[in-house]
Amino acid sequence: MKEKEKTRQLRVRDIEIRDDFWSKIQDLIIDEAIPYQERVLRDEVEGAEKSHAIENFRIAAGLSEGQFYGFVFQDSDVAKWLEGVAYALSVRPDKALEERADKVIGLIGKAQQPDGYLDTYFIIKEPDHKWQNLQECHELYCAGHMMEAGAAYYRETGKDALLSICEKLADHIADRFGPDKIHGVPGHQEIENGLLALYRETGKEKYRDLASFFIEERGKDPDFFHKEKAGRDWVHFNMDPNDRKYMQMHAPVRAQKQASGHAVRQVYMLMAMASLAKEMQDPTLYDACRTLWEDITRRQTYITGGIGSTVHGEAFTFGYDLPNDTVYAETCASIAMVMFAKRMLDIEPDGDYADIMEKELYNGILSGMQLDGKAFFYVNPLEVVSGVSGTLPDYRHVLTRRPKWYACACCPPNLVRLMMSLGTYAWTETDDCIFSHLLIGQTARLDKAEIEVHSSYPQKGMVSWKVSPRTETPFNLAVHIPSCAVSTEIRLNGSTINDTAKIEKGYLYLHRAWQEGDLLELMFDIPVRRVYADPRVRSDAGCTALMRGPVVYCFEQTDQEGRDRLCTYRLPREAAITEELCTEGPLEGMILLHMQGLHLKPAETLYSAERPEPDTASLTAIPYYAWANREEGDMRVWIPE
Amino acid sequence: MKEKEKTRQLRVRDIEIRDDFWSKIQDLIIDEAIPYQERVLRDEVEGAEKSHAIENFRIAAGLSEGQFYGFVFQDSDVAKWLEGVAYALSVRPDKALEERADKVIGLIGKAQQPDGYLDTYFIIKEPDHKWQNLQECHELYCAGHMMEAGAAYYRETGKDALLSICEKLADHIADRFGPDKIHGVPGHQEIENGLLALYRETGKEKYRDLASFFIEERGKDPDFFHKEKAGRDWVHFNMDPNDRKYMQMHAPVRAQKQASGHAVRQVYMLMAMASLAKEMQDPTLYDACRTLWEDITRRQTYITGGIGSTVHGEAFTFGYDLPNDTVYAETCASIAMVMFAKRMLDIEPDGDYADIMEKELYNGILSGMQLDGKAFFYVNPLEVVSGVSGTLPDYRHVLTRRPKWYACACCPPNLVRLMMSLGTYAWTETDDCIFSHLLIGQTARLDKAEIEVHSSYPQKGMVSWKVSPRTETPFNLAVHIPSCAVSTEIRLNGSTINDTAKIEKGYLYLHRAWQEGDLLELMFDIPVRRVYADPRVRSDAGCTALMRGPVVYCFEQTDQEGRDRLCTYRLPREAAITEELCTEGPLEGMILLHMQGLHLKPAETLYSAERPEPDTASLTAIPYYAWANREEGDMRVWIPE
Repeated sequence: MKEKEKTRQLRVRDIEIRDDFWSKIQDLIIDEAIPYQERVLRDEVEGAEKSHAIENFRIAAGLSEGQFYGFVFQDSDVAKWLEGVAYALSVRPDKALEERADKVIGLIGKAQQPDGYLDTYFIIKEPDHKWQNLQECHELYCAGHMMEAGAAYYRETGKDALLSICEKLADHIADRFGPDKIHGVPGHQEIENGLLALYRETGKEKYRDLASFFIEERGKDPDFFHKEKAGRDWVHFNMDPNDRKYMQMHAPVRAQKQASGHAVRQVYMLMAMASLAKEMQDPTLYDACRTLWEDITRRQTYITGGIGSTVHGEAFTFGYDLPNDTVYAETCASIAMVMFAKRMLDIEPDGDYADIMEKELYNGILSGMQLDGKAFFYVNPLEVVSGVSGTLPDYRHVLTRRPKWYACACCPPNLVRLMMSLGTYAWTETDDCIFSHLLIGQTARLDKAEIEVHSSYPQKGMVSWKVSPRTETPFNLAVHIPSCAVSTEIRLNGSTINDTAKIEKGYLYLHRAWQEGDLLELMFDIPVRRVYADPRVRSDAGCTALMRGPVVYCFEQTDQEGRDRLCTYRLPREAAITEELCTEGPLEGMILLHMQGLHLKPAETLYSAERPEPDTASLTAIPYYAWANREEGDMRVWIPE
Repeated sequence: MKEKEKTRQLRVRDIEIRDDFWSKIQDLIIDEAIPYQERVLRDEVEGAEKSHAIENFRIAAGLSEGQFYGFVFQDSDVAKWLEGVAYALSVRPDKALEERADKVIGLIGKAQQPDGYLDTYFIIKEPDHKWQNLQECHELYCAGHMMEAGAAYYRETGKDALLSICEKLADHIADRFGPDKIHGVPGHQEIENGLLALYRETGKEKYRDLASFFIEERGKDPDFFHKEKAGRDWVHFNMDPNDRKYMQMHAPVRAQKQASGHAVRQVYMLMAMASLAKEMQDPTLYDACRTLWEDITRRQTYITGGIGSTVHGEAFTFGYDLPNDTVYAETCASIAMVMFAKRMLDIEPDGDYADIMEKELYNGILSGMQLDGKAFFYVNPLEVVSGVSGTLPDYRHVLTRRPKWYACACCPPNLVRLMMSLGTYAWTETDDCIFSHLLIGQTARLDKAEIEVHSSYPQKGMVSWKVSPRTETPFNLAVHIPSCAVSTEIRLNGSTINDTAKIEKGYLYLHRAWQEGDLLELMFDIPVRRVYADPRVRSDAGCTALMRGPVVYCFEQTDQEGRDRLCTYRLPREAAITEELCTEGPLEGMILLHMQGLHLKPAETLYSAERPEPDTASLTAIPYYAWANREEGDMRVWIPE
């Protein structure tokens, strides 16, 4: 770990994305998802699962009569939506939206109690039970999301109303928890990230220190929730306080060597640990993050970036246990991985982190949203089987169509806030270096330079960086070379410089006194490739998956010759794969893959000494993120070779 | 369906098994399992799940104080054990055992109420709720098993004490249920089989007709259980009366076209339907059986004969859904399939039925018992994965070691009663034919002849039938040619008669005036073969299984070179397979299979464009039924080719 150096706090409004791939997504979110989610939060969408989240604030503020409705963490949906709006207003200003968001913030202010307390569930429903059930009740979790929203809204719009609400809330919390106060920890990590966001905007170290307290305290007293429950005559979810791994309470954070329990809790914790490792200059905390990073990414991550192998506890299981059909792979967990990876990148530039960001963004996260922006997956399977997925008991969580909303709606607004702040994940600026992590067309207005990136990625492999320096001091421009690139041609101002280029841990470093208009061009070779899983992954035995650049492909039943169930098709090892740009329908603009495969004919008997006989069959694969946007049927990423 | 002809009611004592394979099993059951189970039923085995089944009868009889303990169907364990004892006493007389069994029967008699009622749960615990909850409470089920025991005990020992108890019980039931009485049906089929057994021993048609009533009534009023529950202020298991398929209540039996719901309930029902088809000369009932037989055996049966693809409801799912690792494949369900198949054979000789009997007996049933006869599987998986099976939530039912006993202990005594009456499954004698269904060394004393079978099967393919006729009238001897035989040489009195032999639907028919000492010899060629599943079976895609004769093989981790997890091994298509007779250890006397396979080395990264690299590795397969008798570890039947 290098000595502490300044990392510039990036704002969405400093990074303008203009990209063939991602601008469409951002536009879709601004045009469709944000207004749609606002209507859902206001209970204006018919046929969608009821939210009631804004009405809860109205009731808590005394502006409406009624009962609290929803989960104990319902407030966080509003917070995440506001955070997304904050970023969206920077991507594309929208006065009307801003006014509506301001009103929601005003409402939140009215709901806040004089002592700073803010949680509509407890204000409305359980005023006598505040802070008594940290294990189950998500008060700290909701506060954390509100703080992230408050910090973002201030950073992007300059308005401090929500920030002030959050400071009052944070002070209220800091009065109760800490080294010489209650030694409690949240049942669902997130407050730590909120406090750190607040610290970054306000500079108040007490917020950072409280975040550090929550992390350091975790697992020190594994019986904390047990004791908490013991003196209590009420429960909420009836969760088992002995299920310590579920909430990463089984050991102090530095002693945790394998990712375990609820995947989102695990990675939200790691996000905070990574931030603290940097803020507190603590290499032991970075090492702890790295250990779990490696366990997750080298042993417990799906090819799509999904994490969480089981619905039971929405949780990690153990290394190489990656079932494709009963998978959980929650959208939120993939989102958290991007946030975690970026925090790690801010400490140590390592292509591993940027590769995972890509893997998540182009696959397991994007699959969480329908192509029209109005329906969302919580679970992102790698194999769907008609009549099984969504139907049989062990598979009920694996839906084959994106619902309009969820009773537990964490994922849709989480996706919005990530996608709208995408630009901030693309860069790290340190004292002597600008790191470019993501190959997205954009203009970044940084301290040392303004950089204009043109990108044909992931459709093609041509990406360029045009530098307008703001300093005469030489500095490094370090550009991530994605691991999916088979070969890369590097040109500076038109001349190939592969021979002299310094590439370290997945980054190309160019150190020079940059001149206005200096142009770095990279041509990545990103052919379609077959990918194989480690043989220890039982579920992928004998199978291959197709990737093109960072994009994982999948097979949908509707595209295959004969439209039979997908388990009857095979992809011969030698089959050539051709690319086609789709020019119509929902997949317009995507590159489809075609190949001559085999189809196995039904046998005469259920078991037979005859090897199943194959016919040839035309097979087509589409980008995984676009699955479930056409006719319903089987889907699979891994196909038997 | 042929016109009704007499089928001789076979008794165990008329068929004496002397077989290298099966005599060992029968001896084991007599020497170990029956006394062991008796001790369990008497709560004398430490460390085994408590039974209390005999004590329940003592309490109900007023001979002991205490509470009922166990499931509502606890009585049936005693009934099935007694049925097994009845057969065992014919296989090998044992005065002491017979005396003890007689005492248990005496106890049952004392527990029976003056009006004939007999069910210790209700007598002890819920005397006011008799016959009020047919859906959940198994009173008819327990009665059915008691009747099967009573009939068997009378048939084999000539003693009618239990038969009389059962007649009183049957009369009690017949007073309550029937066309002009309560139109109820059992929540778990079995009473039908008990009544039919009683009918066969007593000749009283009212028992047969009541069995017919229960079958014909089933599904006629799919809301029966709903109505039953409506007028009631108590529940037992809180089962959903709307889950009609679970107990085959969704349609009248002739309208049921796919096997569904609880597998044992389904097949117990089919056993009764097949018996009734014959007794009532009802071809529509036979057709209904055949339809479901085909659905089960052609679409829903594991290669081991296991049925029931899901733990949820211990149930069928649908065609080709045969997961190997979350499988249920209850031992009882396989046992029921043998009983069903035999009843079908008694109507129509078809090798399909005999082949399934073999498949079940040599695989999915035998695997239910440890090689020492003292521990039992309820669930018989085709794939076990260390750290997953028995551990992760969806896999908790898939145990990797046979427990000593179960709270719900239906399987162990069921296995005993089947294995001890094995001889009766080997023959059908009709007016003009003796059918030999199973290639087991035995002497059968039938009406038309005494037949001595010598068999080296399944170790080798040599089987002979020596006929001592008891009639001068010519008759057919029809011998099943198992479908696993690649070729068969047929010799009569030393001369090959392949050219003139009549083989129909899997049976070789020899019609002649049999002479004393006539010798039919069959030499089956039963080489090791690779078996493939229908391509629609998703779970077996790309895999092969090994069989030798009727015996399915499996791979256990402990036998493979490197002892790595089994998903890392491959069996090349061209690999030769050699046989070895195991001469020591728990597998002594079994034929093991050896082959040169591949072992895939761990990859550098979780996903990679490099195809996993193989090393050669010696692989060994053992008979499936013998798995889990040595070192714990992975097991699988299907191996990627």
